[in-house]
Amino acid sequence: MLLGRVIGTVWATRKDEKLEGMKFQIVRAVDTDYKPLDNIVVAVDSVGAGVGEIVLIAQGSSGRLTWITRDKPVDAVIMAIVDRLDVELPLSEWEADLK
Amino acid sequence: MLLGRVIGTVWATRKDEKLEGMKFQIVRAVDTDYKPLDNIVVAVDSVGAGVGEIVLIAQGSSGRLTWITRDKPVDAVIMAIVDRLDVELPLSEWEADLK
Amino acid sequence: MLLGRVIGTVWATRKDEKLEGMKFQIVRAVDTDYKPLDNIVVAVDSVGAGVGEIVLIAQGSSGRLTWITRDKPVDAVIMAIVDRLDVELPLSEWEADLK
Amino acid sequence: MLLGRVIGTVWATRKDEKLEGMKFQIVRAVDTDYKPLDNIVVAVDSVGAGVGEIVLIAQGSSGRLTWITRDKPVDAVIMAIVDRLDVELPLSEWEADLK
Amino acid sequence: MLLGRVIGTVWATRKDEKLEGMKFQIVRAVDTDYKPLDNIVVAVDSVGAGVGEIVLIAQGSSGRLTWITRDKPVDAVIMAIVDRLDVELPLSEWEADLK
Repeated sequence: MLLGRVIGTVWATRKDEKLEGMKFQIVRAVDTDYKPLDNIVVAVDSVGAGVGEIVLIAQGSSGRLTWITRDKPVDAVIMAIVDRLDVELPLSEWEADLK
Repeated sequence: MLLGRVIGTVWATRKDEKLEGMKFQIVRAVDTDYKPLDNIVVAVDSVGAGVGEIVLIAQGSSGRLTWITRDKPVDAVIMAIVDRLDVELPLSEWEADLK
Repeated sequence: MLLGRVIGTVWATRKDEKLEGMKFQIVRAVDTDYKPLDNIVVAVDSVGAGVGEIVLIAQGSSGRLTWITRDKPVDAVIMAIVDRLDVELPLSEWEADLK
Repeated sequence: MLLGRVIGTVWATRKDEKLEGMKFQIVRAVDTDYKPLDNIVVAVDSVGAGVGEIVLIAQGSSGRLTWITRDKPVDAVIMAIVDRLDVELPLSEWEADLK
Repeated sequence: MLLGRVIGTVWATRKDEKLEGMKFQIVRAVDTDYKPLDNIVVAVDSVGAGVGEIVLIAQGSSGRLTWITRDKPVDAVIMAIVDRLDVELPLSEWEADLK
């Protein structure tokens, strides 16, 4: 899954009819410190994620396995809202910890 | 989904017979300010998108889930035309807003 | 779909038995001016594309939806030969044309 | 498959109900010397991989083919814990060994 | 398909039970002169490819369509061993040959 942050919403009136009622969120990829990365993805929201929240995105055919996206022409879905990341092995301890 | 802008059309007479009648649009990826990015994708149009319009593209197997692309050998479809983007969290406010 | 140009052929005697008789073409990605890009893909030819021709490639599971690639362990297929590209919105006119 | 190293865990209370009970691990891609690369993936653990371990990740629809991820909206799974890599052809011997 | 060269083997005792008996090869991507590229993929061997050999890799769901990988949680398979590449259109002749 991709780790990202919701930064806004896409408005689209003219679309495939199976997409009616879906919310398309704009998500920017983040690193484990929630620093912004370059990559932007538009994803359907299946969990009520709001702007500013850190989320997980499932892409490809897996993006169609929530109740809201099943059999729809969408390739990315927000399937979880992140409460917290526990990074127990930061880059600074990488070598010391390598067995 | 990928955010992009239609910049032209592909003409191809010799093609898989299941592709007859499809319109192949050339789409350049854009950022949330509609600035052009490097990435170019050729996608089947399922919503009547014209040159200059901002669109969403679904890729992979999801690209085959519109009525026009079902079971066809295509891996990208324009499934929505974008009216407007609401970017509520620009990079300039990223840190301030981080909980 | 990926826009590319056929630059050669792969010869492989030892291969999965379901691949017997397929032609594996080497395709280099191109931009809309047919300038060469870095990316190289090996794709099965389903339309009789020869060296030097500009083609479209469908990747992933979509690459298995031509008569020749169905249920085969291949992830890229040439499904169209490009006659011409009409780029109506070149980068030089991008801003002027933005609504 | 992607070669990576588990560096931490994602906590997410609000998520698709089919994801209940899954462990989401943060994995950083590594090279064959276990040096850290830039790419980070969040993957479901199906084999009991702990922080610090070197693992293999299957992505896309293949990520749903373990008992724990079947039909779930996830696109990456840890399906093996690496004991050892045997790199018999390092870059220093690449040319000499080329037939 | 990806063009690569087998450089070694992954040893993994703890893994999904459906992976028992598979050989996981480490493959480095190559260009058409067999020069090494940065990208490394771990792929299941379905054709008896040895270290040093040039191979083709099918990725994604297509990686599950050999007899050995069917329905397994793997996303890359070596499905052919390359005997020879015929590059008839090198970059030096690109322009001259463009119709």
